Amino acid sequence: MATTIPKGLLLKADPIASAFRDEVKSALARSDRQCKLVGILSTAATPSKFYAEFTQKQCLDLGVEFILKTTGSAADAMLTDGEGVEEAIIEANEDDSVDGIMVYYPIFGAQQDHYLQQIVSPFKDVEGLHVKFHYNLYHNIRYLRPQSLLSPAIHKQEVPTVVEDQPPAGFVKSVLPCTPLAVVKCLEYTRVYNTILPYGDRAYGKTITVINRSEVVGRPLAALLANDGARVFSVDIDSIQEYTKRPRLTSETQTQRFHPRHVVHPCTLTLQECLAQSDVVVSAVPNPNYKVQTEWLKDGCVCLNVAADKNFEKEVRGKASLYMPTIGKVTIMMLIRNLLRLKEYREVLAASESTTPAASS
Amino acid sequence: MATTIPKGLLLKADPIASAFRDEVKSALARSDRQCKLVGILSTAATPSKFYAEFTQKQCLDLGVEFILKTTGSAADAMLTDGEGVEEAIIEANEDDSVDGIMVYYPIFGAQQDHYLQQIVSPFKDVEGLHVKFHYNLYHNIRYLRPQSLLSPAIHKQEVPTVVEDQPPAGFVKSVLPCTPLAVVKCLEYTRVYNTILPYGDRAYGKTITVINRSEVVGRPLAALLANDGARVFSVDIDSIQEYTKRPRLTSETQTQRFHPRHVVHPCTLTLQECLAQSDVVVSAVPNPNYKVQTEWLKDGCVCLNVAADKNFEKEVRGKASLYMPTIGKVTIMMLIRNLLRLKEYREVLAASESTTPAASS
Repeated sequence: MATTIPKGLLLKADPIASAFRDEVKSALARSDRQCKLVGILSTAATPSKFYAEFTQKQCLDLGVEFILKTTGSAADAMLTDGEGVEEAIIEANEDDSVDGIMVYYPIFGAQQDHYLQQIVSPFKDVEGLHVKFHYNLYHNIRYLRPQSLLSPAIHKQEVPTVVEDQPPAGFVKSVLPCTPLAVVKCLEYTRVYNTILPYGDRAYGKTITVINRSEVVGRPLAALLANDGARVFSVDIDSIQEYTKRPRLTSETQTQRFHPRHVVHPCTLTLQECLAQSDVVVSAVPNPNYKVQTEWLKDGCVCLNVAADKNFEKEVRGKASLYMPTIGKVTIMMLIRNLLRLKEYREVLAASESTTPAASS
Repeated sequence: MATTIPKGLLLKADPIASAFRDEVKSALARSDRQCKLVGILSTAATPSKFYAEFTQKQCLDLGVEFILKTTGSAADAMLTDGEGVEEAIIEANEDDSVDGIMVYYPIFGAQQDHYLQQIVSPFKDVEGLHVKFHYNLYHNIRYLRPQSLLSPAIHKQEVPTVVEDQPPAGFVKSVLPCTPLAVVKCLEYTRVYNTILPYGDRAYGKTITVINRSEVVGRPLAALLANDGARVFSVDIDSIQEYTKRPRLTSETQTQRFHPRHVVHPCTLTLQECLAQSDVVVSAVPNPNYKVQTEWLKDGCVCLNVAADKNFEKEVRGKASLYMPTIGKVTIMMLIRNLLRLKEYREVLAASESTTPAASS
């Protein structure tokens, strides 16, 4: 008689979020004052409203002050989506008591929302969507001097050698976008990241397909994973690209271990062919009708759904060894960690500004 | 016997560009050194290659030094589109001898290209695509202090009263994106802008349909025209919006002349209904198959094609009183004007930095 093959593991975000919750709570306890996060809700969209309520609940639980500003159609059904959102961002930029700003997207669509994301001060950008942070992510620059956030210019930077996950003197960690970072944390928890490998290369040996290439989730995630050593297929509606920091093996490159950051190559594989060799599949397609075909998955792979709707079919665990249907609770912990960091960077900067060279010697 | 109705006027960009060419040439003659523009071509796309050659030719004619940097598939067929473009931008950002940077888009698609546009230093952004300039455009802030470009923060700004088209002491003109600005110049030339009206409101009374709402052309153009007094229908693939700075007439608002900047309203009209009442139609749809239906146009309207391909049908002049099939030569003049301005702003800033408060009194 045939044995019933057990289904893959269904993993909720709670245990992963919990570890960070403890870390965040003790950091908050050490803080001299309460942290303040401003959430800006400017549409009447139900998912955004839910997400705002979810943020509020999580902040309350952690002891972070959360101020919800509603504007546009979120405040008044007579107003349009996004009306007043820029003004609300600028007010929060200028309010010294505010440590972080979270804007609930989508509002106007990808392009105009990208414009809005650049209006948020990098010192309050808990979502990590400012070009200064994105640039660092894409270039695998993990640390920055807080002073550098005072200038809009992007310059070639002194890149300190990464030994372990600790910034050298004078540097702090760059801020990573919450959702891609939460995916990495889930992959660390699920042992896709191999801690026996050196820091910065712990996804080496893994093939990962990331479905979606937006500037908010898909592209930063693919870059992050490839910068950590993975071979990544970045799949978008009209193309597939391969991200990797490992050189193509030729006699010239044999001695080079890998590029300092990922390189993007065009890819002629189909999605089906990518999935057939992927150890991990992350899907973030904002369309309730989009489904990754279970039959295309590699047996025993890890599947993460990052979209609001389910991008995986009901029977996904017939193929996947592990399936996470949602990671929102981890994302919010990353957001609060970014909040704490940004508060610290403003403090470091204020301290350095009030210290004269003579006094500091 | 019926008289043959004459066709509308076909207007080329040359006479409009000529006036600016003279202005630019004398400004260049007054300059202490030659201006230097770096063009970055990173794809093998034919329109981009042509546009780069066109820029080169125009620069040569004006006496502007033009350096074409090719990278990615533009430099080597073995490389991919956009490879090395960021590095080329940063190199030009850091090279003090470079006055302006022009990147040939599209490269990666709207979202990732928007990211690239923010990498270009605002002091060298001849295309006027940096968020600092876009923010000013959207908020009808026409002047800025050069110092403000040193900070990435967007703050509420002191907005000097606009009397005529002259910046007050300490201020310079904000940089406007080339293509929208070129459209305005064409509308000034074609008397759509009425010079008898006060500066800043010269498009008052005109209804204008702008087809395309990208962050590069359509939205800034719609905002610019509405900030100048026009009633604008902003048409995109999935929605139509109305931009206007004139208040809806109610007893409360009757005394208010107009908003300081355009307000966006949702619009329930169809494209056909918008066109039926539009004095001007500007189309910038990057699709060779897209055509504005001539039969929908208002008799005697002004039509401007801003797309690389023709968005208007062959018989458009049967309805339009005036048709401009291309405005590229005006766009390039706006680019060179921006180049001259940005060079000046860097000089103003360098001068103010070398002047101590005591010496300046």
